Amino acid sequence: MNNTKDIILTGDRTTGQLHLGHYVGSLRSRVQLQNEYKTYILLADVQALTTHYDQPALIADSVHQVTLDYLAVGIDPDKATLFIQSMIPEIAELTVIFSMFVTVNSLRHNPTIKTEARDRGYTDLYYGFLGYPVSQAADIAFCKATLVPAGEDQIPHIETARKLVRRFNELYAPVLPEPRMLTGDRLGGLDGIGKMSKSMGNSISLHASPEDVHAKLTKAKTDPARIHRTDPGHPDICPVFAYHQLFRKEHAEEIHASCSQGSIGCRDCKRIAGHAINDLLAPFRERRNAYEQRRDDVKEILVEGTRQARQVARETMLEVREAMGIRYFDL
Amino acid sequence: MNNTKDIILTGDRTTGQLHLGHYVGSLRSRVQLQNEYKTYILLADVQALTTHYDQPALIADSVHQVTLDYLAVGIDPDKATLFIQSMIPEIAELTVIFSMFVTVNSLRHNPTIKTEARDRGYTDLYYGFLGYPVSQAADIAFCKATLVPAGEDQIPHIETARKLVRRFNELYAPVLPEPRMLTGDRLGGLDGIGKMSKSMGNSISLHASPEDVHAKLTKAKTDPARIHRTDPGHPDICPVFAYHQLFRKEHAEEIHASCSQGSIGCRDCKRIAGHAINDLLAPFRERRNAYEQRRDDVKEILVEGTRQARQVARETMLEVREAMGIRYFDL
Ligand code: SF4
Ligand code: SF4
Repeated sequence: MNNTKDIILTGDRTTGQLHLGHYVGSLRSRVQLQNEYKTYILLADVQALTTHYDQPALIADSVHQVTLDYLAVGIDPDKATLFIQSMIPEIAELTVIFSMFVTVNSLRHNPTIKTEARDRGYTDLYYGFLGYPVSQAADIAFCKATLVPAGEDQIPHIETARKLVRRFNELYAPVLPEPRMLTGDRLGGLDGIGKMSKSMGNSISLHASPEDVHAKLTKAKTDPARIHRTDPGHPDICPVFAYHQLFRKEHAEEIHASCSQGSIGCRDCKRIAGHAINDLLAPFRERRNAYEQRRDDVKEILVEGTRQARQVARETMLEVREAMGIRYFDL
Repeated sequence: MNNTKDIILTGDRTTGQLHLGHYVGSLRSRVQLQNEYKTYILLADVQALTTHYDQPALIADSVHQVTLDYLAVGIDPDKATLFIQSMIPEIAELTVIFSMFVTVNSLRHNPTIKTEARDRGYTDLYYGFLGYPVSQAADIAFCKATLVPAGEDQIPHIETARKLVRRFNELYAPVLPEPRMLTGDRLGGLDGIGKMSKSMGNSISLHASPEDVHAKLTKAKTDPARIHRTDPGHPDICPVFAYHQLFRKEHAEEIHASCSQGSIGCRDCKRIAGHAINDLLAPFRERRNAYEQRRDDVKEILVEGTRQARQVARETMLEVREAMGIRYFDL
């Protein structure tokens, strides 16, 4: 399998809109990868149900919003296949098959599941929530993806996917490739606590207005040691400096020096970072506005992508049945 | 929903052939019910995977064998819809949806799961095994079944199915009926320990030869107090007497008296029970032999039944999506 070209599978839970953290973590690299590799991008509405089953309207709306975000950042529907997870029944079928050979305890020990359960205040886990890494393995397997661009918190899930695929291949026949992971950059939140995350309220939306970007930065935490404008700062612990590093890299050293010497005030520093972010977001806003006027076209993109993904899923599922010896007949 | 006619869903795990315990527990009533109600009969190969994922060839063979057993006992493919579980992707889809609102602990506390896990020596449960009651709820829901003929050990599973359906209806819209259960008779094993079960080696296959039936009964446990032919016996604790009650009911009182008085020997008593069982099995053997010659017709019965079940499943799934507000478009 090593000489064949990679197939990319990536995607997002549809529980809201996307933010800058998604951009540097994964969207940015997807926009590159789509030019070179077959790329599948999943609108993970089933995974969204694991935490938001009681808010399906939010999920359905988010499917539309996230699609707009994708198109806005430059995902090209002629290059990448955008599709809706719940519309691919073969993913559910593979989820059920994989669930036969993963133990409850191994899922319970998954560190990301543990962290999320704690953050969400779950004590008695829902069965579907505990098993979402199994469902992710099915997302990856149905299109025989070999490369998964995702954030660091996904490492344990990719490990589960690798194990499940390996186990399947050992048990039946080697039809599913083992996926590798491609980690992106991690973006801290505006509060300086943990990563940027919508649920933490410390994020900048990909379609925030220019004013909104500046307003958010104004409230961002900075080095607490800087009381007066001329106090020397510690940029390495300041969330705003991290944005300089990511969005204005070529001048980051300069800012580092000015902050450390106390020759720049936080207000100006934030203003500069805000401009850099707005420069990045400007074309995104424009494309998003254009697509917002074309609701039918956006739907058609999803219909077409889902149809393509479905076709691939059907073929994989036939191979899976063949390998397991349960391809009784084709309907 | 109370005034509409019942829809029946029933079925068996395809991990072997069926035995007399299946007959009195459920097959007998299915043969009656098929005349009056829409009846779906499921060859549960996915559920079979929960315990036999490493023996798919056994499962595939059992699909054929169990189908022959069904036809042998009098299931009429023109009346009942016989279908293969793994060929209905909508069951997997519903399983995944239901898994969002059942907790791991509630599944762990399911007494039948506990007993089975203990009997099979499972310590660290497989995720799919723990969740098979969720999958059963999906089996019942996909065809909107209202009545499930099954053994007593299934009571906790039907309770889970009722809860899941109720929860779905509360959360989204009332589209799925709450199933009721219809329990059959329980048949003890030849060893007098627990119920008749293939894995316990205490069963009589539905297509045992006449000699085999007698041979099995010869080895059956009886009242241990009967050392001599004239010792008074305790038929109520004797597994053989239970067979008299089920298969030779009209003379059971007579046997009860003879045994209690010590006026019949166990050998004769077993001989009489064996004849009664053979009288029951004779027409089954004949039908089975006839169908064994018609392998293509048997396959066609499954193809046709699965196609019908699939159609119903598609319709239910559209209603489910509609209810949840995630019917984005139809492919
Ligand atoms: S000057 Fe900039 S980098 Fe330094 S503490 Fe203030 S906001 Fe952070
Ligand atoms: S006579 Fe029949 S019922 Fe009585 S102990 Fe023997 S086998 Fe059982």
